[in-house]
Amino acid sequence: MAADIAEQPAGYARLLEGAPAAAIAEVAARIAEQRPRHVVFVGRGTSDHAALYGAYLTEIRLGIPVGLASPSAITLYGARPDLAGALVVGVSQSGGSPDLTEVLKVARESGAHTLAVTNNPASTLASAAELSIDVSAGHERAVAATKTYTAELLSLLLLVEGIRGGGDGRPAADERAALAELPQLAEETLGGHGADELAQRYRFASRMVTTGRGYAYPTARETALKLMETSYLPALAFSGADLLHGPLAMTDPDVPVLAVVGSGPGGGSMADVVTRLGERRADVVTIGAHDIAGASGRLAVPEVDERYAPLLDILPLQKLALALALARGEDPDAPRGLKKVTATL
Amino acid sequence: MAADIAEQPAGYARLLEGAPAAAIAEVAARIAEQRPRHVVFVGRGTSDHAALYGAYLTEIRLGIPVGLASPSAITLYGARPDLAGALVVGVSQSGGSPDLTEVLKVARESGAHTLAVTNNPASTLASAAELSIDVSAGHERAVAATKTYTAELLSLLLLVEGIRGGGDGRPAADERAALAELPQLAEETLGGHGADELAQRYRFASRMVTTGRGYAYPTARETALKLMETSYLPALAFSGADLLHGPLAMTDPDVPVLAVVGSGPGGGSMADVVTRLGERRADVVTIGAHDIAGASGRLAVPEVDERYAPLLDILPLQKLALALALARGEDPDAPRGLKKVTATL
Repeated sequence: MAADIAEQPAGYARLLEGAPAAAIAEVAARIAEQRPRHVVFVGRGTSDHAALYGAYLTEIRLGIPVGLASPSAITLYGARPDLAGALVVGVSQSGGSPDLTEVLKVARESGAHTLAVTNNPASTLASAAELSIDVSAGHERAVAATKTYTAELLSLLLLVEGIRGGGDGRPAADERAALAELPQLAEETLGGHGADELAQRYRFASRMVTTGRGYAYPTARETALKLMETSYLPALAFSGADLLHGPLAMTDPDVPVLAVVGSGPGGGSMADVVTRLGERRADVVTIGAHDIAGASGRLAVPEVDERYAPLLDILPLQKLALALALARGEDPDAPRGLKKVTATL
Repeated sequence: MAADIAEQPAGYARLLEGAPAAAIAEVAARIAEQRPRHVVFVGRGTSDHAALYGAYLTEIRLGIPVGLASPSAITLYGARPDLAGALVVGVSQSGGSPDLTEVLKVARESGAHTLAVTNNPASTLASAAELSIDVSAGHERAVAATKTYTAELLSLLLLVEGIRGGGDGRPAADERAALAELPQLAEETLGGHGADELAQRYRFASRMVTTGRGYAYPTARETALKLMETSYLPALAFSGADLLHGPLAMTDPDVPVLAVVGSGPGGGSMADVVTRLGERRADVVTIGAHDIAGASGRLAVPEVDERYAPLLDILPLQKLALALALARGEDPDAPRGLKKVTATL
């Protein structure tokens, strides 16, 4: 898991240059021509969090309505929605999940354009889809996904900015310049030591809450899943808004909260959430570029536009999940009860 | 909270007869004429779970693609998706959430049809929408929503079956006959004592997992939220499929699992989930009409088609949340840190 995590800056550089970027640009150009009326994302587990990021990007950057779909309507109940004119995107690192493959098949039969985003271009998901993107993360050794997650994020970012760029499917020049900085920023972010120290603080925690809004919400969800997978810590992820609608009652001084607070509208809206958590005397640690009032600590990340932040913010949080698992005497490379490919129908 | 819970069978009867049903039929007939190309649901907290139920119904019963949307793309990042031809449905018991109101305004400006489903027909949400449904639950005294939740569910069911029925916006005759049995079935379900006994079993639980698939997934989510709101118990809800993609690692004999297992495709797909949980020696109690192998107990509910089950299954689970809060010495009528109307932007 440590090796997978460490490879991410090089993985970003590989995706951004040469063949992988060109392949994604080709797909982006095709989708720009197809002009989908709306986009439906499907994914499971970690890949569902990447799909969520793709959904925010699509709605905010392209102005195309998006939704996240539940495969079970189609796979269990036989729903056959009319998806003509839509783009259905299946996200899966293995590409081996039968339910996602069936959703793409059914969507394609009903006239939808379909796209598979996967780390295995030879997978059944990629074969079932009209278009596919290879996220090119290389073999992932640990069961808990890390580098395949961020490769999915960056592939979706390249795709959406490529569609937005128009023409040849490449992102606009200023966007490409900003993207080119990400490998170096990821390297710097991974160089920090805050995650290891924080793992000591959470050694005896019995639960955890993670929260964020907008682009930061997928990071909160993915952090909670990593903590559950590797440290067996019940970790509850909420959008900052949903947290105030009920789960806030559960927080007290014994519940550590990890709040992803970026430099933008999503982070700005978290100030009220952190204040309300402070009133409940929750122990809040933020992930962000600036200290905010009411928090007891911060994992430092570089200041970037919020739409790039998910590619950096998750890095120290993956390290935290790893360090916490080790501190608790667990084996993060082989979580109990899990396999690398999960087949659900 | 006890009084709110007890009123639900009478509330079902009220919604199904006379003025409320006729008003919903009128809305259903209008939407059937508009023939939306896709439907977008938005909600927060408990109402988000009702929205999720509405999404399953829409896709399975009407064959119209649906998605759940995050308000923040519009309210925080200024996304202006082209929603012409879509129906955007905001679900909120108070109708007072500024973010949902803004989503409906923006959607309406972009050419979408809009519908508010709320317990307050004089609310800003209802005013912002082209169409609105009054779920007619009456004044809810407790902060934790119970009867407004099931009134939202039943209103959405009447709406979808009314659209499906065509013509006058009323459900088909056989559907109406099945619906007419719900008040009596709800009364019988509430008469059971299993929830009170189960509350004793969970008196010292430090966390909980809830799970279900398809139509039962909203019940799993809502149960987790009720347990968090009233008993301050960290409760994690997963679709049965997502549970196998990671969180399964977290389960052990100290984690009680509540599994909603209906009589249909969703319930059928849970057998494998319960087996896998059994391998991890988790303590599984099911909610359903039949015992299943590997479970240590069951909350009994009547056998009905899975699309009606959310209106019955949640009833003993609301009672469980209430009884557990009392057993733990908490005040379920006034959860710490919460208000009845939560304003998020």
